[in-house]
Amino acid sequence: MKQEELPEGYKPLDLVSLKTYLASLPHVAERLRGEPKSWTVNEVGDGNLNLVFKVHGPGGGIAVKQALPYVRLVGESWPLPLNRSHYEHLALMEQSRLAPNLVPKVYHHDQRMALIVMELFEPHIIMRRGMIEGRRYDRFADHISTFMARTLYLTSDLALTADRKKALIASFAGNTALCKITEDLIFTEPYMSAPNNRWTSPYLDELASDFRNDSTLKGAVSRLKLKFMSSPEALIHGDLHTGSVMVTEQDTRVIDPEFAFMGPMGFDIGAMIANFFLNYLAQDGHEERLGQREAYRRWVLETTQQIWAEFQSKFLGLWRSNATGDAYRPALFEGAAGQLQLESERSLYMRKLFVDMLGFAAAKMIRRILGLAHNIDFEWIQDKCLRAACEARALELARGMMINAEGLTSLAHICEEASQLRKWQPQFH
Amino acid sequence: MKQEELPEGYKPLDLVSLKTYLASLPHVAERLRGEPKSWTVNEVGDGNLNLVFKVHGPGGGIAVKQALPYVRLVGESWPLPLNRSHYEHLALMEQSRLAPNLVPKVYHHDQRMALIVMELFEPHIIMRRGMIEGRRYDRFADHISTFMARTLYLTSDLALTADRKKALIASFAGNTALCKITEDLIFTEPYMSAPNNRWTSPYLDELASDFRNDSTLKGAVSRLKLKFMSSPEALIHGDLHTGSVMVTEQDTRVIDPEFAFMGPMGFDIGAMIANFFLNYLAQDGHEERLGQREAYRRWVLETTQQIWAEFQSKFLGLWRSNATGDAYRPALFEGAAGQLQLESERSLYMRKLFVDMLGFAAAKMIRRILGLAHNIDFEWIQDKCLRAACEARALELARGMMINAEGLTSLAHICEEASQLRKWQPQFH
Repeated sequence: MKQEELPEGYKPLDLVSLKTYLASLPHVAERLRGEPKSWTVNEVGDGNLNLVFKVHGPGGGIAVKQALPYVRLVGESWPLPLNRSHYEHLALMEQSRLAPNLVPKVYHHDQRMALIVMELFEPHIIMRRGMIEGRRYDRFADHISTFMARTLYLTSDLALTADRKKALIASFAGNTALCKITEDLIFTEPYMSAPNNRWTSPYLDELASDFRNDSTLKGAVSRLKLKFMSSPEALIHGDLHTGSVMVTEQDTRVIDPEFAFMGPMGFDIGAMIANFFLNYLAQDGHEERLGQREAYRRWVLETTQQIWAEFQSKFLGLWRSNATGDAYRPALFEGAAGQLQLESERSLYMRKLFVDMLGFAAAKMIRRILGLAHNIDFEWIQDKCLRAACEARALELARGMMINAEGLTSLAHICEEASQLRKWQPQFH
Repeated sequence: MKQEELPEGYKPLDLVSLKTYLASLPHVAERLRGEPKSWTVNEVGDGNLNLVFKVHGPGGGIAVKQALPYVRLVGESWPLPLNRSHYEHLALMEQSRLAPNLVPKVYHHDQRMALIVMELFEPHIIMRRGMIEGRRYDRFADHISTFMARTLYLTSDLALTADRKKALIASFAGNTALCKITEDLIFTEPYMSAPNNRWTSPYLDELASDFRNDSTLKGAVSRLKLKFMSSPEALIHGDLHTGSVMVTEQDTRVIDPEFAFMGPMGFDIGAMIANFFLNYLAQDGHEERLGQREAYRRWVLETTQQIWAEFQSKFLGLWRSNATGDAYRPALFEGAAGQLQLESERSLYMRKLFVDMLGFAAAKMIRRILGLAHNIDFEWIQDKCLRAACEARALELARGMMINAEGLTSLAHICEEASQLRKWQPQFH
């Protein structure tokens, strides 16, 4: 992209210009302390879309995230609006109010530069990397279920009056470019021939073709897509996989909410459990000896179930104690019969959310194997044939979840299914 | 409301100041022709909310609608924002683009005065009055199904790209005060003790109390309310009853879309068939001799079924020929198997819409009998005991529709139920 095509006031920073920029922000410079020349700057990227710098000074560290006017993963041929930084900032403000200590503090936001200066987490690592190494995070289920229950419940019709809810919908309505990435890459392209698609070839050629020709699956994924586009249930993170979480054994921080908008709650919870299933089925490719990761695999499946169980319990707890929204008004459900009915409505609501979660989880699993963006959980398996076997199992698990979502009643059952699938040795032609 | 509390630039017009105002608009004055003193002005009201004037000059007539800063039906104690005129204008612009000749042309819009100058329809009458008199409108089902199919389909995810759809959601997101009227008066208050409620007392006291104590019904209506608040499927009129339609035998015009917002399609279709059922069950109170209205009643039920049948057929026709939206992308359903699957998705979609329609229709029927705003279909029945009997039948029909919506498969069946209910003579204590 040529310099003259960039929006006014915007300039991508580099290791040198970043220091000058930060030095001009007194409260940031004060946090780093010392002279700019004493600061160290590293560009670490965040994978697919942006510039990310870690900056250290004598006083401490900060992270700086700047949007690029194109998709970094693909290049300048795929433009992407800088206003996503505005939505990320807006989401971070909401999330830090609703789930403090689970997201980064923002120190500075520059809308024209599409840049956010925020808290740097050390010695945290990206959770996906930890899980590939087989590290346990025993506090994670508690933390992430709190994050999801609070950010989703407290921005829903159960907690907000209708006017405040609609104002929130309107304030995120412009984040369409990032929604479109999801609409195309998750809900459409993996089910048709599209130049963005890739998979572990030639092993998965046949399975990929099966998926492109599975009409039932196309119907199911199209209903999910419509739900994604047209269900502003709550402020969702929009990209809540294990790559958007920084962890230590004690601490959990959710980052990168630039895909945030008012959408279906099941999409966030589904994204999280999808990535647990993917990691579970990838472990066979990371074992140094057979069975080495058996205990870890058990932890992954237990944690998957715990995430939903704790989410459900916290969400319902908020509903029972904080029914401040216009939906299911308590005044309508007074007395013993009313209370019973309201509990039955709550069960119905959670059941619907569970079904949504399974469908969205399945879509997220399939796109990571047949679509554009893949997971290092699988990509780092060197033996391509072994990798393809792990991926084939994940595809089968996901297909069943998507098609049978309405009939499935417990995560334990799906975990059992995942564990059975490990015994399946796909024959590749 | 005191003069000094009115928004700047706003002043309610009267028979005299209206002439001065219109004379200052050259293109409007030109339409009326002659001197202002030769114009005749009548204030006709529109029932519940606004000032409505009919103005005639030597050149023709116009209608002028001005919002008042309070609910006219209730008085100055219930304030209502003037910006509803902005949303009405916005909706009229969309509707006249999508369904030309089925809505009034707008000649002038003054946002500060909360005023719209528009086409005057003569010799049209409000359809509800015609139906109370037993007049047939044989072209109505065709016209209203076109209006609904086109305004709903063409503003849905089936016709619009996701970004245009979200922009439309945002542009109507501020019409919250009018949505709240619906949320409170339709989906909440009739099911609890509320000062706004009234019913034909003492005859319906017991039934009203039954409804306030029916937990199953409260659960069902709460799910409908959530759907109303949280399903921006399409641009809905929001108040599409027979009082919002002006008709002759040949012509149909839908007016008063000030409740418009991006909501569930079933709410509009449900409002229309609800008012047909109410009129049907009110006919016993308007007969001069037993059986006098038998043929008319048959027409009402046939037309009710025709409205849905033609709506469905036109909506599906648009879907098959105009699939320009991001939902159910045709590229995903190529080939014979894909086409079959897409048709099966369309059936599923229409089935869901049918169920929504029944639930919303039931809610609209109940509110007109137990809530604040009643229908003249019933109110004009002088014999209160007879009126209560008609209303009780409508309440029972509605209760069944709301609770069993998911199990009901055809409107013919519900029409049969309505016809059976006429034989029921409620015993009032």
